[in-house]
Amino acid sequence: MTTKVIVWGENVHEQKSETVRGIYPSGMHGCIASALNDDPDISAETAILQDPEHGLSAERLDGTDVLIWWGHAAHGEVDDAVVERVVERVWHGMGLIVLHSAHFAKVFMRLMGSPCNLTWREAGERERLWVTAPGHPIAAGLPDHFELENEEMYGEPFGVPEPLETIFISWFQGGEAFRSGLTYRRGAGNIFYFRPGHETYPTYHDANVQRVLKNAVKWAHSVRRAEGSAIDAPNRPVKEALEPIEERGPRLHKDGEEGLR
Amino acid sequence: MTTKVIVWGENVHEQKSETVRGIYPSGMHGCIASALNDDPDISAETAILQDPEHGLSAERLDGTDVLIWWGHAAHGEVDDAVVERVVERVWHGMGLIVLHSAHFAKVFMRLMGSPCNLTWREAGERERLWVTAPGHPIAAGLPDHFELENEEMYGEPFGVPEPLETIFISWFQGGEAFRSGLTYRRGAGNIFYFRPGHETYPTYHDANVQRVLKNAVKWAHSVRRAEGSAIDAPNRPVKEALEPIEERGPRLHKDGEEGLR
Amino acid sequence: MTTKVIVWGENVHEQKSETVRGIYPSGMHGCIASALNDDPDISAETAILQDPEHGLSAERLDGTDVLIWWGHAAHGEVDDAVVERVVERVWHGMGLIVLHSAHFAKVFMRLMGSPCNLTWREAGERERLWVTAPGHPIAAGLPDHFELENEEMYGEPFGVPEPLETIFISWFQGGEAFRSGLTYRRGAGNIFYFRPGHETYPTYHDANVQRVLKNAVKWAHSVRRAEGSAIDAPNRPVKEALEPIEERGPRLHKDGEEGLR
Amino acid sequence: MTTKVIVWGENVHEQKSETVRGIYPSGMHGCIASALNDDPDISAETAILQDPEHGLSAERLDGTDVLIWWGHAAHGEVDDAVVERVVERVWHGMGLIVLHSAHFAKVFMRLMGSPCNLTWREAGERERLWVTAPGHPIAAGLPDHFELENEEMYGEPFGVPEPLETIFISWFQGGEAFRSGLTYRRGAGNIFYFRPGHETYPTYHDANVQRVLKNAVKWAHSVRRAEGSAIDAPNRPVKEALEPIEERGPRLHKDGEEGLR
Repeated sequence: MTTKVIVWGENVHEQKSETVRGIYPSGMHGCIASALNDDPDISAETAILQDPEHGLSAERLDGTDVLIWWGHAAHGEVDDAVVERVVERVWHGMGLIVLHSAHFAKVFMRLMGSPCNLTWREAGERERLWVTAPGHPIAAGLPDHFELENEEMYGEPFGVPEPLETIFISWFQGGEAFRSGLTYRRGAGNIFYFRPGHETYPTYHDANVQRVLKNAVKWAHSVRRAEGSAIDAPNRPVKEALEPIEERGPRLHKDGEEGLR
Repeated sequence: MTTKVIVWGENVHEQKSETVRGIYPSGMHGCIASALNDDPDISAETAILQDPEHGLSAERLDGTDVLIWWGHAAHGEVDDAVVERVVERVWHGMGLIVLHSAHFAKVFMRLMGSPCNLTWREAGERERLWVTAPGHPIAAGLPDHFELENEEMYGEPFGVPEPLETIFISWFQGGEAFRSGLTYRRGAGNIFYFRPGHETYPTYHDANVQRVLKNAVKWAHSVRRAEGSAIDAPNRPVKEALEPIEERGPRLHKDGEEGLR
Repeated sequence: MTTKVIVWGENVHEQKSETVRGIYPSGMHGCIASALNDDPDISAETAILQDPEHGLSAERLDGTDVLIWWGHAAHGEVDDAVVERVVERVWHGMGLIVLHSAHFAKVFMRLMGSPCNLTWREAGERERLWVTAPGHPIAAGLPDHFELENEEMYGEPFGVPEPLETIFISWFQGGEAFRSGLTYRRGAGNIFYFRPGHETYPTYHDANVQRVLKNAVKWAHSVRRAEGSAIDAPNRPVKEALEPIEERGPRLHKDGEEGLR
Repeated sequence: MTTKVIVWGENVHEQKSETVRGIYPSGMHGCIASALNDDPDISAETAILQDPEHGLSAERLDGTDVLIWWGHAAHGEVDDAVVERVVERVWHGMGLIVLHSAHFAKVFMRLMGSPCNLTWREAGERERLWVTAPGHPIAAGLPDHFELENEEMYGEPFGVPEPLETIFISWFQGGEAFRSGLTYRRGAGNIFYFRPGHETYPTYHDANVQRVLKNAVKWAHSVRRAEGSAIDAPNRPVKEALEPIEERGPRLHKDGEEGLR
């Protein structure tokens, strides 16, 4: 079974910064998609902020199993209608992998219902990721830890809800620790937040990082629910009750009426 | 220690429906606040949709430990600015208790990040709540189950995130079952969703329901964090790092610069 | 990828009771294994209490991806050494599916660390299972609810830890509700408790129940960790520290010494 | 309301090692109890391995709200009957705080159902604990991080179940990170694992560590359930069913019979 992936990239610093363009000549999204496509069971395409509808039309999302999201400088430019479209697809079972500075992406904040804040420092310091859930499919094939020689620091408290599972925690050279791999579910959609990936460092060229992303894509690929089923709130009329009941007491609603929202 | 509570009521059906007004002559909010005030450790006031700022000014919320929310017919009339104000207070540690049809309240949907949908039937059927977490403070002093002879049915799937804890599940006469008491945390704020409370039945006059609400108020009362601390994302400059580090590699940001959002 | 399964059956009431033998002429374990083998991606065998080592030799367990456990009358006859062997395999990544009255099986109680008690009634009453996690792989292909016309009742409180996920809750004709599908992880092993399956009713012939079991087998199939890795507690000597440190202060242990247990 | 605490100490290295005795002249348990007794709402006593029944008679445990456990060298000498007695009290609502090397204590392993293993290094290195749940009562009054200049290192993977909540994670000078404050519930009992506390360092004299312990004691103090209620598995006879049902189909059990275990 092939997992169909869209790697969404903001594609701003790739245009503005020679440093970033030098590391990621085909964009960060291009680098990630290319790494994923090394896996015969994954078929990855890209989409960018500058595309019509940010490359995330309803039709395209309907054919997507997992969406990967990287953004940093232009969270505010993402159209709210596209955000709602993505969020609803997640509720219906599309997987979502949120990378690094996308902790402040609208789609992530919307799904978490929390501030998603953290502390940070851009010093090219060493990050060492420790696997806390060694049997988890997202950690398959990884050593017990791996290092990124240059990364931006993110520090606790990380303003996210208590996760379903903590997969990685990070050690930073400057003295901080951080929960750097967290799983969530919203509706039928699996969500994975993965911390590394500052644009001025070659993080997405790292073999262990690429292994995490491939694993996460497969983990996040879920059963898709029928359109609307994750948001409908149907009335079950008395006469269709599974056990025979008599209507009693006063009512607000008529039979089959749509509920109040 | 006194817990300061605001019971927020939509106050629409109390005005429109003689049935509802008959059961709750001082409003559903009034009934709940009055029950809470029987407890010497709770000081409860009310606020309604029709008040200026819906009775939820910044000053008033700042002095509130726990907010209880009941709404049904007018979710859409709640001002988005007030919703954001409430949500931020929850992140900073204000407790929130969400009742019955407020599963579709803006504040709850915003904090859950999920569709919060369910199935329903208004037939005055019997509901029996079973305690699934007998040692939990929210269940203190309750029998192993209790009944509400007339209630609206809510059925699964309930479109909420996996809770921290499941405290109650309900049996319905018409054949459904439902997770009817769920805890969450968002930022520093404790959140409890409690299912019963259709406006055409005398649910909030029930002694067991009142016991649950008193317990939940005390459980939800948390430590309040300093204003802004739950949402700030401060830069930690290299020269203030807790362990000595040298800056390395290319940068996007200048020292002390505010991060991108 | 084929998932290798052992279906373990206590095989006591099949011998003693004509009723049970009539419903399950090849044993409950035989019925379940046969149903699983309809799936081309599952290869299921059986093991019984009366086999040498209860059919669960170290060699056999090493080649097993998922173990299914049904027991009722003879929990106390299961050898403690076999229990520890199974538990350790779960920690290393073998999946475990625990059925019905095996809530009191030694392997389950050992892994839960909790009393695993519940209330019960054997009256052949109707059970209706509601899916609470519609996008979960264990619920794939199921309707929103399904019925078993005759089942034993299990009631709350169910003395198990808060689960990772609640997949099903049950409605019973006699007035109880129960959390009937729960997931856990212990070490690298996925665990699923599934409630239905009293031996005097044809539950494991039911198509929906069989669908749940097939789904659960695939869900529980995890990455197996190297032998011992899930239980070792290795010393990391100072000279092998990942960051250069000097030894300071008093010590209890010599370099490379085994830790205290 | 006063919280009654027993601080249980193994009291072995205090006798054997002059270093440990020098730091903790009244024992580690004595130091902890003394710190707790500074809080007017806590009344703490001590118990040690060498006492009859390890100081944990049934009568004494019945009057205890929260038990704190420190052990290292003599886990194997703790009597299994006392372990079961403690475990059952936890199920009925006694809180349990497990410190440092007690990750391998029988009571903790028994309640977790997991290997509880980790990696370690005794080098007197710096540990820095970061608060990951700033609004949690266990973190009340703490700064966003605090340091212990000399501690033993514990590294991931930590072989415990996914916690209810992660309260602290630790950074170590030698390059590791660790989940150092975790909450669990087993039955009605709240459990908190807190990592620091190697016997050759003055950790329990640290003001922040003492703050954590006082907070944890209050957090863990729960409602105590009636004796036996957390482990009973009562039959609910047909004639006492909450909804009228007729007995149907074949049975194994007679009315009121005790269930099989």
